Amino acid sequence: MRRIPVSAGALQWVRYNSNTAQTGDEDVITPWSVAAKGPKGINYDRVLTTFKAEPVDESVVAKLRQVLEKQHGKEKPPPLHHFFTRGVVFSHRDFIKALDDIEENMVPGKHKAFLYTGRGPSSGSMHVGHVIPFLLTKYLQDTFSLPLVIQITDDEKFLFRDVPFEGPKADELITSNIKDIIAFGFNPRRTFIFRNSQYMGEMYPTVLSVQKLLTGNAVKNTFGIADTDSVGKFAFPATQAAPSFSSSFRRVLHSAKDEKLRCIIPCAIDQDPFFVLTRNVAPRIKAIPPALLHTKFLPALKGLEHKMSSSAEQNGVITLHDTDQQVKKKLRKAFSGGRATIEEMREKGADLETDVAYQFIKFFSPDDALLEKVTKEYQSGDMNSGTVKDIAAEVVVEHVMKDWRERRLKVTDEDVQHFTGIRNILL
Amino acid sequence: MRRIPVSAGALQWVRYNSNTAQTGDEDVITPWSVAAKGPKGINYDRVLTTFKAEPVDESVVAKLRQVLEKQHGKEKPPPLHHFFTRGVVFSHRDFIKALDDIEENMVPGKHKAFLYTGRGPSSGSMHVGHVIPFLLTKYLQDTFSLPLVIQITDDEKFLFRDVPFEGPKADELITSNIKDIIAFGFNPRRTFIFRNSQYMGEMYPTVLSVQKLLTGNAVKNTFGIADTDSVGKFAFPATQAAPSFSSSFRRVLHSAKDEKLRCIIPCAIDQDPFFVLTRNVAPRIKAIPPALLHTKFLPALKGLEHKMSSSAEQNGVITLHDTDQQVKKKLRKAFSGGRATIEEMREKGADLETDVAYQFIKFFSPDDALLEKVTKEYQSGDMNSGTVKDIAAEVVVEHVMKDWRERRLKVTDEDVQHFTGIRNILL
Repeated sequence: MRRIPVSAGALQWVRYNSNTAQTGDEDVITPWSVAAKGPKGINYDRVLTTFKAEPVDESVVAKLRQVLEKQHGKEKPPPLHHFFTRGVVFSHRDFIKALDDIEENMVPGKHKAFLYTGRGPSSGSMHVGHVIPFLLTKYLQDTFSLPLVIQITDDEKFLFRDVPFEGPKADELITSNIKDIIAFGFNPRRTFIFRNSQYMGEMYPTVLSVQKLLTGNAVKNTFGIADTDSVGKFAFPATQAAPSFSSSFRRVLHSAKDEKLRCIIPCAIDQDPFFVLTRNVAPRIKAIPPALLHTKFLPALKGLEHKMSSSAEQNGVITLHDTDQQVKKKLRKAFSGGRATIEEMREKGADLETDVAYQFIKFFSPDDALLEKVTKEYQSGDMNSGTVKDIAAEVVVEHVMKDWRERRLKVTDEDVQHFTGIRNILL
Repeated sequence: MRRIPVSAGALQWVRYNSNTAQTGDEDVITPWSVAAKGPKGINYDRVLTTFKAEPVDESVVAKLRQVLEKQHGKEKPPPLHHFFTRGVVFSHRDFIKALDDIEENMVPGKHKAFLYTGRGPSSGSMHVGHVIPFLLTKYLQDTFSLPLVIQITDDEKFLFRDVPFEGPKADELITSNIKDIIAFGFNPRRTFIFRNSQYMGEMYPTVLSVQKLLTGNAVKNTFGIADTDSVGKFAFPATQAAPSFSSSFRRVLHSAKDEKLRCIIPCAIDQDPFFVLTRNVAPRIKAIPPALLHTKFLPALKGLEHKMSSSAEQNGVITLHDTDQQVKKKLRKAFSGGRATIEEMREKGADLETDVAYQFIKFFSPDDALLEKVTKEYQSGDMNSGTVKDIAAEVVVEHVMKDWRERRLKVTDEDVQHFTGIRNILL
């Protein structure tokens, strides 16, 4: 969910825009800007402390494994996604409670939870950094048969970046973005995709309830919005918050008993501030606070100081529409943890922590044996960085693009109509 | 349009919440609060200067008369409403332009203008002060066959006064309010009444465009909203602004050529700040700035320092649901400009400017001869204040309540369905 743009801020987003001095050695993580202070990238341990979230540790993984076994049988539980075992999903809020909800309701057609993720429609193709929350979301939907709502924040792009939300060009762009999302293979029966500019009528009662409980101060302090900004920016956080509550989907998450469902939000850590506010609001509107699963950022090709971002220079980004050759060529130029000479490489081995290609393999290859092999040989200097880069390119093509491309070719305007049609996805 | 509540402010609403000193001799007129400094009530000449609006003077009345004659023929033009000839409508913005638009398009079924007014749904009955903009609106609709949209700001009542907008009780209350409005006799074919909480889906694109152009500063300075207020309050002015633009009514004001229509807003002067902001936004979204007709406040029974208000003590207000006897009884207690003794009365005559009952006759009786007679005899002391009060009671019953009551009895739930149904009212 990369949505809100502009300016830099401090890691401690609660202090954003305040006058407290920055020590200058902190990573920057806000919904607008992400930058690490060193070549090893974001210090996620520190993020955990600062954001006061729970770590995704052994106990979380064990609980997830237990629910998987309960749902699918001890003999053949689906594999645990490597995002969980390799720390790509590194932090959470209330995910254990969400798993409890899922565990208690393993009856077909019965739900006590739904997934919510989103995307700000952008003119460029989606890049491989965008992919991570969507892959996680798809894994959770497939594994637990969960209903899923996906917010397209065309209103936010208009308010924050002057991107039109109306007219044939806007429709074409946004439809293309929705097709990109559909191509992840979300369950057509259980997935609802909505554009804020078109769905607000259904959400407005919930948006209003959230707007009433968010003060100008809260929004200004959390997001660094200023009095010179538009009131649209003041109002928007409530619009991103509202889908966390099943009341926003009276016709879409419609159960006969009108039960409240717990929302599970897979998102990159920079979106957390929106949902901390949302979680604070929840008890005051007698709603269930959403659970969160935070993912790390895929590093930019130029190094782990940056996350992959569309606004970076053209060659810094691998998009989903790149060819195999482009992927290979771009990864060849990625920042390497290899050493300057063969001798040095043989002596010290590569620095895996700063090596972008190695990180890509870790993020995207489900093959633990491959990762182990690369780790061992690259670290010891037996494998050179060119080989690692080519392996990374193969991994990206094989595990991110191949199936996606095939599905993307088949996505039709009718599919978009179907996924965006208001209908009950709990059935 | 009495909508936004709370705290006091200065007459110069543009200075509201600023640190400039108040001289203390100014009347207070804001969307939340109205109070005059003396028994003669609001100094409307001063309001004109402060608000920088145009006076409704002889030239405006002449233009109105001219358009009436053109529309209805020189022989039988409908009478000019006494609101115009007695200064009840005392101020305007762009009303001449609106009359030009009407004049140029006197072809049946062709429109270049529409009317917009509104009401915040309240638990009490509508009082006779509320009636004035509605009577003016009805006159303009009838006279020029204008389409009319009426906004029910249930969202604002929720944000500013904790009044629920959902549930059976809220629905009952709001339906009753809508029936009260329908009972003014608006044209069922040309009138659309909408609840913001239910109509936002249609308006949101226009609301967004306005939200984007109103800064936090503008809203804070104009309405005295503070950072401790909810972001809902920051956002609401754009929601009251949006219906000023025909783009909010794509299915309701739907002309084949997709022409923009000029909006004409009859409202009490305290609602002007909303629409000054709206008029500033208009050119930036290539829309027509709305025209405004400002009405004076009906005084409270206790005197001209106050306007009639539901929040006043029970007996200070005449509601539309009062019986003839109640009206008479309440007016008997109204503040009088008569003198303490018969001798003094014969000597000095009554003080018409401070006499509430006299003002009621001036506001509500279309009968110029009656007004002239009362003016002459009361001023000279030949008529006593008891008689004037009884005449005022008769005028209110006859010209505000009688027809309204009859119509109100006949308004059904089906009528509410019809008036609130989304349909093209330009047809």
